[in-house]
Amino acid sequence: MAKHFPDIEMLFKGDRLAISRAISSVENESPESQALLKRVFSQTGRAYRIGITGPPGAGKSTIANKLAQLYRGQGLSIGIIAVDPTSPFSGGALLGDRVRMIDVELDDGVFIRSMASRGSLGGLSKKAIEAVDVLDAAGKDIVIMETVGVGQSELDIAGAADTTVVVLVPESGDSIQAMKAGLMEIADFFVLNKADRAGAEQAVMSIKMILSFKEQPEWTSDVLKVVASEGKGIDSIAEKIRQHREFLMQNDRLTKKRRLRLEDRIRTLVADRLKVDFWDRARSSLLEKKMADVMKFSTTPYDVAEDLIEHFRTM
Amino acid sequence: MAKHFPDIEMLFKGDRLAISRAISSVENESPESQALLKRVFSQTGRAYRIGITGPPGAGKSTIANKLAQLYRGQGLSIGIIAVDPTSPFSGGALLGDRVRMIDVELDDGVFIRSMASRGSLGGLSKKAIEAVDVLDAAGKDIVIMETVGVGQSELDIAGAADTTVVVLVPESGDSIQAMKAGLMEIADFFVLNKADRAGAEQAVMSIKMILSFKEQPEWTSDVLKVVASEGKGIDSIAEKIRQHREFLMQNDRLTKKRRLRLEDRIRTLVADRLKVDFWDRARSSLLEKKMADVMKFSTTPYDVAEDLIEHFRTM
Repeated sequence: MAKHFPDIEMLFKGDRLAISRAISSVENESPESQALLKRVFSQTGRAYRIGITGPPGAGKSTIANKLAQLYRGQGLSIGIIAVDPTSPFSGGALLGDRVRMIDVELDDGVFIRSMASRGSLGGLSKKAIEAVDVLDAAGKDIVIMETVGVGQSELDIAGAADTTVVVLVPESGDSIQAMKAGLMEIADFFVLNKADRAGAEQAVMSIKMILSFKEQPEWTSDVLKVVASEGKGIDSIAEKIRQHREFLMQNDRLTKKRRLRLEDRIRTLVADRLKVDFWDRARSSLLEKKMADVMKFSTTPYDVAEDLIEHFRTM
Repeated sequence: MAKHFPDIEMLFKGDRLAISRAISSVENESPESQALLKRVFSQTGRAYRIGITGPPGAGKSTIANKLAQLYRGQGLSIGIIAVDPTSPFSGGALLGDRVRMIDVELDDGVFIRSMASRGSLGGLSKKAIEAVDVLDAAGKDIVIMETVGVGQSELDIAGAADTTVVVLVPESGDSIQAMKAGLMEIADFFVLNKADRAGAEQAVMSIKMILSFKEQPEWTSDVLKVVASEGKGIDSIAEKIRQHREFLMQNDRLTKKRRLRLEDRIRTLVADRLKVDFWDRARSSLLEKKMADVMKFSTTPYDVAEDLIEHFRTM
């Protein structure tokens, strides 16, 4: 029997404590989280989802913070999920984000949550996306997802945004190179933060040169120069997001984007579930038994995989 | 009927053209690649596998190159797989690596192959590990896997090494931060390259501080300072690898490590195969049909995933 989440009506009314509990439930995969997520999903689809990503130290938190303040000034409610794929033994970033975020945390219209991976990286992006659903269902007008880096889990999270902003700084030489690995594909536009520093023009040129290789038939990406710590250029980011949102509203683009995203999510859920179903006690011990032969090179990983699948489909 | 790879005996003799063809076959997933990989696997287990990873520009290729020269001087044969998870439209790195590698490429005892992802990141690490098997089966004494970055696919490749070396430079402030995401866990030791530059001592201290948080009950990680372009410190890297190899030879550690690695590989093969089997025409069209309800919020991704799995297990 699925347990029920106690505060679901409070959650839908936007109650802070209920939001906080719901995200904890998702994060901890508590017994009631499955039923909760199903109910939450039915209330999603209203929030606009903004992804902010880039290398550590680029100023993503500051930008998320200042954007939130700007939107608050327009009377909108905001949720922020800050994802930090930190490894277990260096988990200092959690507190760091919270401290940096304190400007907006005091405002009741902004809900901020940091999520760090404790242990495996794998589940974090799934949980972060579910936390965004919770904020959407709680009535937030805008949900900002802030993620570090260029790994697969960051790409997954960025893929869950309606508009994705990639933040770089003049010193991001390494990061501009790393963009080849995926950031370039996901960026709807770039922000060069700390643009008052030396090397800003060169960085903008590097990004524009890489952009010139990208096919952009309908939406043209761009690089905005900002100095987030002084609040300079935040309005230009908001304006660019508005333009991109308007672009997505045409020709059903947003609907198509969300549909693809939900299909991806179902495929991921299927893969996760199959993995759990597959590796039950029977097949785990079958693998264990076969490993002796693999280690003696008398069978191969390919043959063992085939045998295990045969077992799964005929049992 | 599985096709057969024509040059298998030549491959086992270490013939360059046969190696090259076999890796191409694996890379392109040609019809004969499955049968080839099974035969190849039976001849593996002799090469020592060294992983070299770190951010772009850290000098991994130079270090791989100089290490290869050093091992050549000891009469050993070497294979190098340089993996670059480059996105399709910025695929310049392939040529770049080849040019940088030219020192050792002329020597018949060294086989070098660059592999770049064309399209999806996902399959690259699997293929790179299979290419390493090919080099192992071809009789290489040492196989070096060189990979860029800190993403999941790089971690997978590093996980396939017996000894993993993480290369940083004094400017790697960003990267040292990014290590939190996984490099720290996989490094058997660190190399600070370009250690004649300003900031070297500070970088070493940063790494050592992070290392001090890591539990290292038996093997103690370390940071070696080198200037690879001038050949300074390459012998210290080789010596550290030798010490680590010796450590692994005690108490069956290497055997246990390889066993875990092969188990992981079987699990990955199973997951990949299940994915292909699952998403046949029947379930793809079932998903297609259900998406209309998901978009209307009259069902949820969770319910659809459950229905699809039910369909898979009862068909």
